[in-house]
Amino acid sequence: MIKVAILGYGTVGSGVFEIIRENKDLIAANAGEEIEVKYVLDLRDFPGDPCENVLVHDYNIILEDPEVEIVIEVMGGLKPAYDFVKAALDAGKSVCTSNKELVAKHGAELIRIAKSHNRNFLFEASVGGGIPIIRPINMHITADKICEITGILNGTTNYILTKMDKEGADFASTLKQAQDLGYAERNPEADIEGFDAVRKIAILASLAKGKTVDFEEIYTEGISNITDIDFKYAKTMNKSIKLLGKCKNEDDGVVASVAPRLLSQEHPLYNVNGVVNGILVRGNMVGDLVFIGSGAGKLPTASAVVSDVVDAVRHLNVSTTVMWDEEKLELEDFSKSKKHFFVRTKADKKDIESIFGNVEYVDAGISGETGFITEKISEEKFSEKADKLGIISRIRIEG
Amino acid sequence: MIKVAILGYGTVGSGVFEIIRENKDLIAANAGEEIEVKYVLDLRDFPGDPCENVLVHDYNIILEDPEVEIVIEVMGGLKPAYDFVKAALDAGKSVCTSNKELVAKHGAELIRIAKSHNRNFLFEASVGGGIPIIRPINMHITADKICEITGILNGTTNYILTKMDKEGADFASTLKQAQDLGYAERNPEADIEGFDAVRKIAILASLAKGKTVDFEEIYTEGISNITDIDFKYAKTMNKSIKLLGKCKNEDDGVVASVAPRLLSQEHPLYNVNGVVNGILVRGNMVGDLVFIGSGAGKLPTASAVVSDVVDAVRHLNVSTTVMWDEEKLELEDFSKSKKHFFVRTKADKKDIESIFGNVEYVDAGISGETGFITEKISEEKFSEKADKLGIISRIRIEG
Repeated sequence: MIKVAILGYGTVGSGVFEIIRENKDLIAANAGEEIEVKYVLDLRDFPGDPCENVLVHDYNIILEDPEVEIVIEVMGGLKPAYDFVKAALDAGKSVCTSNKELVAKHGAELIRIAKSHNRNFLFEASVGGGIPIIRPINMHITADKICEITGILNGTTNYILTKMDKEGADFASTLKQAQDLGYAERNPEADIEGFDAVRKIAILASLAKGKTVDFEEIYTEGISNITDIDFKYAKTMNKSIKLLGKCKNEDDGVVASVAPRLLSQEHPLYNVNGVVNGILVRGNMVGDLVFIGSGAGKLPTASAVVSDVVDAVRHLNVSTTVMWDEEKLELEDFSKSKKHFFVRTKADKKDIESIFGNVEYVDAGISGETGFITEKISEEKFSEKADKLGIISRIRIEG
Repeated sequence: MIKVAILGYGTVGSGVFEIIRENKDLIAANAGEEIEVKYVLDLRDFPGDPCENVLVHDYNIILEDPEVEIVIEVMGGLKPAYDFVKAALDAGKSVCTSNKELVAKHGAELIRIAKSHNRNFLFEASVGGGIPIIRPINMHITADKICEITGILNGTTNYILTKMDKEGADFASTLKQAQDLGYAERNPEADIEGFDAVRKIAILASLAKGKTVDFEEIYTEGISNITDIDFKYAKTMNKSIKLLGKCKNEDDGVVASVAPRLLSQEHPLYNVNGVVNGILVRGNMVGDLVFIGSGAGKLPTASAVVSDVVDAVRHLNVSTTVMWDEEKLELEDFSKSKKHFFVRTKADKKDIESIFGNVEYVDAGISGETGFITEKISEEKFSEKADKLGIISRIRIEG
């Protein structure tokens, strides 16, 4: 019998509690030990809730109880999660977390502390919700150099973009609808502006490269400038627009970014729609692997958290191998990265061609403007030329 | 330094040799130990090949060398692979294999023998080539009851069906083309008739259920009866035809099958085309997870084999948890399983409706016959009615 404590009885925390109760026997069979939730920590009370009997308000009770082998941190945010997790690891407990902010900011340090105690710091649910992606990178794609990771890592923005794509709706009304349905927060900035996705791609990039990728150094652009007219052009090109987190080996180094991109129908992430997440990992031997599933939601995320708990029980006093050092990975300057751009402008074709040279025009029947695709050029060069020409907007083309 | 031996220097074996050499340093970092191929076993000679220095023709040299900790079996087939693998495990070595025949037939027994020596019998590459699917089932989907596994598990048949779909070609000429390109064997029966796929779904079903599913008891139907006219109907329905291996909890028990099925555009496997494989796993908590990648090919398959070797090194004297007992799982009779059928017949609508009741007609403009979709009925009931009516063909509808 292994005793665990859950920190935070919100959406994910209550899901973890429910799964451990509902699937008790099969989890015991998989873990090799029965798992019992000895404590749930929350500031609130939950009268009548099944967690009531194990609810505590003081973290020290958990920290000082040597029976608690595994701490499940599902509070989110950095404060007090970071201090709580560090204290648990220092007390010789393993920690499983769904907290992408914590992992993106302090992952390498917490892995090191866990290792020093022969314990584990596991965070499968911090990226891609229920989708196995951390464990495949750590435990499966171990014979390959990982050349690229490209993911639809945020369900809210994917829901909005899918709606805009399928229904021709504009951004503002789609966002409002998503908020009404609970798919977007009242304060949607973290999702819409890519701040959620950038932490997730930083985590994946750090694991793929074995060094720390600082999410604050990753070029980040959200979807709030994407319009229904952009989708009209996209349709003409047989493409869709997705918010992609990317980390890729390019000529001069590793380039990482979060930005909306135009994706062709042949791309394996083209059909990843709605709140679903999808992640492509390219290895130098295995080629392209694609992982698709629920990127958020109570039970999918909690399922991934509990799979970490099972893993922690299986490796109770053995630190599993996670390659992620505190040493920083210097990213290649994003402005050097080359790609095709789709551009909308009010300029005339003579100016377009004199500045951008060989371009491919896209006629979506929008009057008063011209759409075109550039040759493959660097971000830097593109900005120069775009400034010179004057443009309405531009979207990067994937691939 | 961990010493390994490769049994069989065919496509996969030479791929394993190449990856261990090419990605040596990163594999050493991931495994925590350098890995050296001490022997390659093959009956043939390979003058000038890099394997030449370590090539042996006598298995006993490997078996009796205590330095060899891990045996990599990539010969395929049951003889002599089964005896070789059993002997290696009995000698206290771990075994990694890509051999689906061996795993489907003797998996549970070989896992038991490995466990009894605190060693591992690993077989990630036996299903889905380079796609991580065995390890996710064993190590990730551990908090969920697995309700369904549905997979495109054979690249050859998927290549043929994709060609027929996209190009309107007929079966015979597409098969010939696939053979000319090396995507289909000269003797294509194992692929075409589903004998390859049925072993793979049996392995996945056994792991999902923890008991042995006998592949010989799984209903198996290949694609050799699928015609270009079937694809014309499929197009009219906005569907495609895929050969699916399935294992699903239905009302009265677990139903397993391999058969061509009509898939709608919304199905996550609809866009898995060409030689690519795709597998959907449905958990009772996590929902649908989809894994897509190269299902065959030298380097993708070898990559999965080497990932097993890394895993075996990480767990050198610890048996990792694999839930697959020798006890047999009694499958529910396939004839009781219910679904919609798409039917082609020369009978008239009066007879169709008097026998099948409420049907939905599909007009693909094919003269001299009628296409229709039945209500959801059991295989058994369908056969009775189809016999009574007289039909040209029928394809099961997925979902």
